[in-house]
Amino acid sequence: MPTNRPLILITNDDSVFAPGLHLLIDYVKSMGDVVAIAPDAPHSGQSSAISVNKVLQINRHEDYNGAAIYSVNGTPVDCVKLGMHAVLDRRPDFILSGINHGSNSGNSIIYSGTMGAVLEGCMLGIPSIGYSFHSHNQAYSLEACREVVEKITSRVMEQGLPSDICLNVNIPKCSKVEGIKVTRAARGFWTEEYAEYVDPHGKPFYWLTGKFHNVEPDNPETDLYWTDRGYASVVPCRPDQSAVNEIGLISDLLG
Amino acid sequence: MPTNRPLILITNDDSVFAPGLHLLIDYVKSMGDVVAIAPDAPHSGQSSAISVNKVLQINRHEDYNGAAIYSVNGTPVDCVKLGMHAVLDRRPDFILSGINHGSNSGNSIIYSGTMGAVLEGCMLGIPSIGYSFHSHNQAYSLEACREVVEKITSRVMEQGLPSDICLNVNIPKCSKVEGIKVTRAARGFWTEEYAEYVDPHGKPFYWLTGKFHNVEPDNPETDLYWTDRGYASVVPCRPDQSAVNEIGLISDLLG
Repeated sequence: MPTNRPLILITNDDSVFAPGLHLLIDYVKSMGDVVAIAPDAPHSGQSSAISVNKVLQINRHEDYNGAAIYSVNGTPVDCVKLGMHAVLDRRPDFILSGINHGSNSGNSIIYSGTMGAVLEGCMLGIPSIGYSFHSHNQAYSLEACREVVEKITSRVMEQGLPSDICLNVNIPKCSKVEGIKVTRAARGFWTEEYAEYVDPHGKPFYWLTGKFHNVEPDNPETDLYWTDRGYASVVPCRPDQSAVNEIGLISDLLG
Repeated sequence: MPTNRPLILITNDDSVFAPGLHLLIDYVKSMGDVVAIAPDAPHSGQSSAISVNKVLQINRHEDYNGAAIYSVNGTPVDCVKLGMHAVLDRRPDFILSGINHGSNSGNSIIYSGTMGAVLEGCMLGIPSIGYSFHSHNQAYSLEACREVVEKITSRVMEQGLPSDICLNVNIPKCSKVEGIKVTRAARGFWTEEYAEYVDPHGKPFYWLTGKFHNVEPDNPETDLYWTDRGYASVVPCRPDQSAVNEIGLISDLLG
């Protein structure tokens, strides 16, 4: 049934069955018509991956709290692209992704399927926000997120975003957030990246693990500084990675 | 056998069996010690995806033209991370990815597994370059690429790159390139994104396709302007997508 309310497309990378998806629907359902289109299975770490040589299918699930729910056997970006192509009967006014179970602070954004969907929405010219909660424990209450999600979503719905900017919101693990800080991603690198095993034939195999080593933990310009202190962080992100200020320098180097 | 020559790690997203990988080895083998670690199967469109819940294994293949060759059952970023963890006995001095069979111009970089590996190398502080050739036809000669690859690789090996910058090089389909232009990614969007089918039970399914619609085809600041005119394009790229110049504006919006 068409309405005049804004259409909010919700997706994530934890799958259509993730509690964070349902909580995000709960938090924003009063703000518009909500349709959720999310992967049929967990797709953490999928970045902006797309399925280029695979058949994609869509399945409808039981509605949740007034929102239609669909799954796609693909990545978060597949959900945005195929959802807009084959599910939605109008262009979404906003795209929200999450609430992710786990941090997307620091350089994690580049690996994040949650943010892959958000960057895709931004490239389509749709104001898009990713929400991540700093706990992988799905039993942990996400209620601390409500205030942050409601405030940021409603402000963006009222005022929009610059056309090439989307938001990466991270919410610390606490019962109440201290406030919201707009920052940049903390610089760092990953250590202890693999657990090592040996198969029954004596051949090694590996499982990705790792810790993010923040090289600037005391810098209040960064997201992790604030999430470590109980604040939600908001990092404005630009999908286009072209380093336009370096064109002259690289021209000289290659000239 | 340790040497004093620079160590060049080569990877790609078209797999260890792709002709472009072997050509890249041919072009740079005189410049250093070369080890190739690439996916065991094609991984186009994998962006910066990582395998978070999957066992990774490494297999050694027959050497090619003096280079040791390994495959990983994962993504291009997995190849860089696991290769550095478990294959290489020293930190690579340079990472090269490609030569990709197909364009990574415009906003394709965000989906590109070729460039996912390059962005990963850059985040590790290693000068990294992605090479893509504008033809999916693997029978098409890639010899036109030799001059471009040799020139850019040797310059970067002599002079390095700024620590947070990597290069996305695109080479047009032609027998000889006109020159090299340092640019930014052309803005645009994808159209006609899915071929549609119906399964034997009457249920639709989809296969990703699509054309990039360049919204600024006459802009000489962009990569596609030059590749359309027979030049190789070089886009300096920054992995960190934080839009630091927008922090004030977004703070006001959320304040």
